[in-house]
Amino acid sequence: MATTGEGRGLFLTLEGIDGCGKTTQAARLADALEAAGCDVVRLREPGGTDISEKIRGLLLDPSNAEMCPECELLLYEASRAQLVRQVISPALERGAVVVCDRFFDSTLAYQEAARGLSSQVVRTANGLGSCGVTPHRTVVLDLEPAQALSRATAGGADRLEAEGLAFQQRVRDGYLRLVGEEPERVHLVDASGTPDEVYFALLGTLADVLPASLATEAEPHGRG
Amino acid sequence: MATTGEGRGLFLTLEGIDGCGKTTQAARLADALEAAGCDVVRLREPGGTDISEKIRGLLLDPSNAEMCPECELLLYEASRAQLVRQVISPALERGAVVVCDRFFDSTLAYQEAARGLSSQVVRTANGLGSCGVTPHRTVVLDLEPAQALSRATAGGADRLEAEGLAFQQRVRDGYLRLVGEEPERVHLVDASGTPDEVYFALLGTLADVLPASLATEAEPHGRG
Repeated sequence: MATTGEGRGLFLTLEGIDGCGKTTQAARLADALEAAGCDVVRLREPGGTDISEKIRGLLLDPSNAEMCPECELLLYEASRAQLVRQVISPALERGAVVVCDRFFDSTLAYQEAARGLSSQVVRTANGLGSCGVTPHRTVVLDLEPAQALSRATAGGADRLEAEGLAFQQRVRDGYLRLVGEEPERVHLVDASGTPDEVYFALLGTLADVLPASLATEAEPHGRG
Repeated sequence: MATTGEGRGLFLTLEGIDGCGKTTQAARLADALEAAGCDVVRLREPGGTDISEKIRGLLLDPSNAEMCPECELLLYEASRAQLVRQVISPALERGAVVVCDRFFDSTLAYQEAARGLSSQVVRTANGLGSCGVTPHRTVVLDLEPAQALSRATAGGADRLEAEGLAFQQRVRDGYLRLVGEEPERVHLVDASGTPDEVYFALLGTLADVLPASLATEAEPHGRG
């Protein structure tokens, strides 16, 4: 179990474009960690506390279409700060494993690509919103936007199409840059395979931080 | 009229502890500017746009008592960013005079004193929330907390007493530090006199940035 960061716990985040399979993999990982006897806290951003959900409500309310990019960014960060202080930090302090579907790397990939905010502004905001808490390991599930679109169910496909493949490609490029900038923390996993293939690749790239029983589960596939 | 900052307009902010007379003086100043033929935009923080008012609602909702200091700070900044982008910047661009009752100096004085956040965190957040827009002139109406309390009406006195004089003194000290740090932008006006005395002292300290007709109004009192 990793000992860096806050407390004795382990903070894992999953990232990637819409349709990359992140939510499915986060659930499978959390289930496996629980089966291995870990205290697991599973979260999704934005949200996870009453206050964060109210802020999520402002972010998603179509009547707030006039919202400027900086306001949107700061609302994401406000929601994040509450989640960190109220849930993530206490969980890490008590030694839990926190599995979070999106965290501040999403803000970097999306707000920069989507809203044209500078990387510096987003990074500064991320520093405030995360209250200085950084994931021990972040896994980007990497997928071609066209493949994500072909996989998506009707509702998801609508959203992906509305944003456009060029936009999704900019987000993907943002994630790839992150992997290059912080290779120790941010690992890439090819998400183009079957759910099983992706899951075992995920376990493999987390092997050095996972409890021994789960890390062993990944080994045959890592060698195969 | 000042030519620094964004556009051709003039951005004035009034600051001070609760009960210092800021709201009264802001109204009188705005009325006088309008009477002098200026295009005046009068604002109060937090608020001033639909989205900013919704964020204000979250900040003031007693059911959100669990809100952490960082979340509160970032919500203030989100509300501010929307006000700047939607109202203040366009007003300054078209040459208007913006008179704002509180702006980012309040966040510095209050969040540092009230929540124990570091000056660096608050300044960084202020830079994001203000979208880089700085008032041309900020006037701190300076008053002893005990005098502010003795002046306050019942509702205001309740609030002042709830926070305590020691707290108000810390806020006042924060403002005094600002005057020392940025003497060109942040001016101090003694708010212990009559409303007329304070008003003419306010006009006097703004004389170099106000339209000539208003600056002249201040002169006899400035000399007296």
